[in-house]
Amino acid sequence: MKLYEHSPFPNPRRVRVFMAEKGIDCQRVEIDLPAGEHRGEDFKAKNPLAGVPVLELSDGTHIAETQAICHYLEAIQPEPPLLGRGAKEKAVVEMWQRRIEQNLFERLATYFHLATPGLGALEPHRNQDHGEYCKAQALRMMELLDRELAAREFIAGDYSVADITALCALDFAQALDLEWPASFVNLNAWHERLSQRPSAAA
Amino acid sequence: MKLYEHSPFPNPRRVRVFMAEKGIDCQRVEIDLPAGEHRGEDFKAKNPLAGVPVLELSDGTHIAETQAICHYLEAIQPEPPLLGRGAKEKAVVEMWQRRIEQNLFERLATYFHLATPGLGALEPHRNQDHGEYCKAQALRMMELLDRELAAREFIAGDYSVADITALCALDFAQALDLEWPASFVNLNAWHERLSQRPSAAA
Repeated sequence: MKLYEHSPFPNPRRVRVFMAEKGIDCQRVEIDLPAGEHRGEDFKAKNPLAGVPVLELSDGTHIAETQAICHYLEAIQPEPPLLGRGAKEKAVVEMWQRRIEQNLFERLATYFHLATPGLGALEPHRNQDHGEYCKAQALRMMELLDRELAAREFIAGDYSVADITALCALDFAQALDLEWPASFVNLNAWHERLSQRPSAAA
Repeated sequence: MKLYEHSPFPNPRRVRVFMAEKGIDCQRVEIDLPAGEHRGEDFKAKNPLAGVPVLELSDGTHIAETQAICHYLEAIQPEPPLLGRGAKEKAVVEMWQRRIEQNLFERLATYFHLATPGLGALEPHRNQDHGEYCKAQALRMMELLDRELAAREFIAGDYSVADITALCALDFAQALDLEWPASFVNLNAWHERLSQRPSAAA
């Protein structure tokens, strides 16, 4: 297996943390995104949507999209389970992963692309108004997570991919100098716990 | 099981089509979204993010997020498989589902909310410029799907949830009077095939 990534970006990190929790290692190939390598014909043959991460299997199949890669890794190495155990628990994990991906992670990404220098000339579309709107929505999602975490240690029951997506989102927010209120005490305590796991360094 | 939905919306339809393909039936409860019922305390106790669809299990657990509901339904009734068979095929289906969800379905939803009358006073944030940008991105994704469908009958191998997400997205585009080029002949032939399946009426 081979992981094509751009290591500073938050989506490849989601896969690296997931792999670290499972003790999976594989070759990593750095794609030079700032130079536009992901838009070249070579890389688009691996992923026509030109995004990272992409997992290359030994038979040459390419799996793109972070959560799809996580499903594959969970299937080939079920322990420790990061997508839940049993139909109901798995659905709850999938639900929280998706909620966080859409309402926190992607809102931050849209803010990054539209209302900060973003990827510069690589993705020149900017829109300050909608970017700021998405930032406000991301903060609302953090507030909801803070309320939810008052009652439990992890986001979706046991430690899971939902925690990984949220960790990478919060660290992405920090990299963007986006601050959230110190009054989110449950979220902050959770963030500190998660940051202390060895996988957080992946 | 009970499905809370707002039947004219495309996300609840994704679940209905999925259920129809599996022959699963359950009680449906219509939530009056235009009247803001989804934002009342009753419904937010089921889904704090106030969205439909939500599946209520017999033990009172609530599963929100369309793909999480589909994972649950696949687990309790594996046949016919709509999320693929085996680790690799499942990852390919998950990848295509996600690509279509993010680059077609959600782009159309953003266009709807930002650049059309959308949900009116319920969601008053508008932004014509970014809405039109998302519409253009949705059309680019249709073009990519048209190229992919030159080589195969369905989007991710056998008929799958990826086809369901794309069908509901294209029909949503039509409901928004968003036209795509007649030159997308593979996509249009696929759309006609999918529309003829009995599940399309769900």
